[in-house]
Amino acid sequence: MPTIATTAMVQIRPLLPKDWPATWQIMEPVVRAGETLPFNPAMDAGAGYAIWVEAAQKAFVVVTGDGQVLGTYHIKPNGPTLAAHVCNCGYVVAPTARRQGIGSLMFSHSQEQAVALGFQAMQFNLVVATNTAAVQAWQRNGMAIIGTLPGAFHHQRLGFVDAHVMFKSLKGD
Amino acid sequence: MPTIATTAMVQIRPLLPKDWPATWQIMEPVVRAGETLPFNPAMDAGAGYAIWVEAAQKAFVVVTGDGQVLGTYHIKPNGPTLAAHVCNCGYVVAPTARRQGIGSLMFSHSQEQAVALGFQAMQFNLVVATNTAAVQAWQRNGMAIIGTLPGAFHHQRLGFVDAHVMFKSLKGD
Repeated sequence: MPTIATTAMVQIRPLLPKDWPATWQIMEPVVRAGETLPFNPAMDAGAGYAIWVEAAQKAFVVVTGDGQVLGTYHIKPNGPTLAAHVCNCGYVVAPTARRQGIGSLMFSHSQEQAVALGFQAMQFNLVVATNTAAVQAWQRNGMAIIGTLPGAFHHQRLGFVDAHVMFKSLKGD
Repeated sequence: MPTIATTAMVQIRPLLPKDWPATWQIMEPVVRAGETLPFNPAMDAGAGYAIWVEAAQKAFVVVTGDGQVLGTYHIKPNGPTLAAHVCNCGYVVAPTARRQGIGSLMFSHSQEQAVALGFQAMQFNLVVATNTAAVQAWQRNGMAIIGTLPGAFHHQRLGFVDAHVMFKSLKGD
């Protein structure tokens, strides 16, 4: 299975400032495309760092033995104090490393992190409905579609498309 | 009808810095109770101003002819650039002015503001399910429950309770 072969060769570790150029290199085409992440498609590396790393509680990278970045994710509380027991995560897989289990590897890691950080549940606020590969991957990992927001994402190729709110309880895991 | 009588005597206008002491006076008991708003129940007036006014796009107050504050609301984009065509609002009615139509008055005003500001839809991310009066009021105003997040709000009296995501398209209004 390619998934196991790949994940055996990679490591997930905290994103350090020195990792940002290589991380932004895989994020930039995803941001520019504006088809999955809600960020300004024109934003620069500095704005990306502020949003992805500084505004998060923790950020991680998936790296190969020779230091290549294949993916990144971040985790943060989904809301202020009385909603801060639910976490929110964002994930990016390098366009060249898709369909190799990197997303699921990061999801598993993020779920462990969430539990370790004391979160009781995980919520994604804006899973673009046209991104069916992602929706199905999250569903396989136990994230349920709680509801669908009509036209809530401004897809840069398809226009206004629906987005799902997805949720998973972490209690009892 | 009490609603009309009340609303005829009040004015909605932008919240000015000088309004904050009177506005915080009506918000403080609601924040302290921790039963409807997700903010830190222990936060002070300065933190309240930062969250309610400075972090919003616009904030308003409902005032009587003699300057008494009966309610306040704010409006802001619900997400970054590709989700910024959907607005998010928060509303507080003075505990002493409930059931007089102040909430619906603010909702109507906020909907007009949303359209004027170019928003295409309105979303509430965390409507506490036990706050049935609010849920029903929003439903009467056309907000639909898109989904319900299990245990997503840490109610300070009842523990972890469900919260609704509510949504209304503003196109064609």
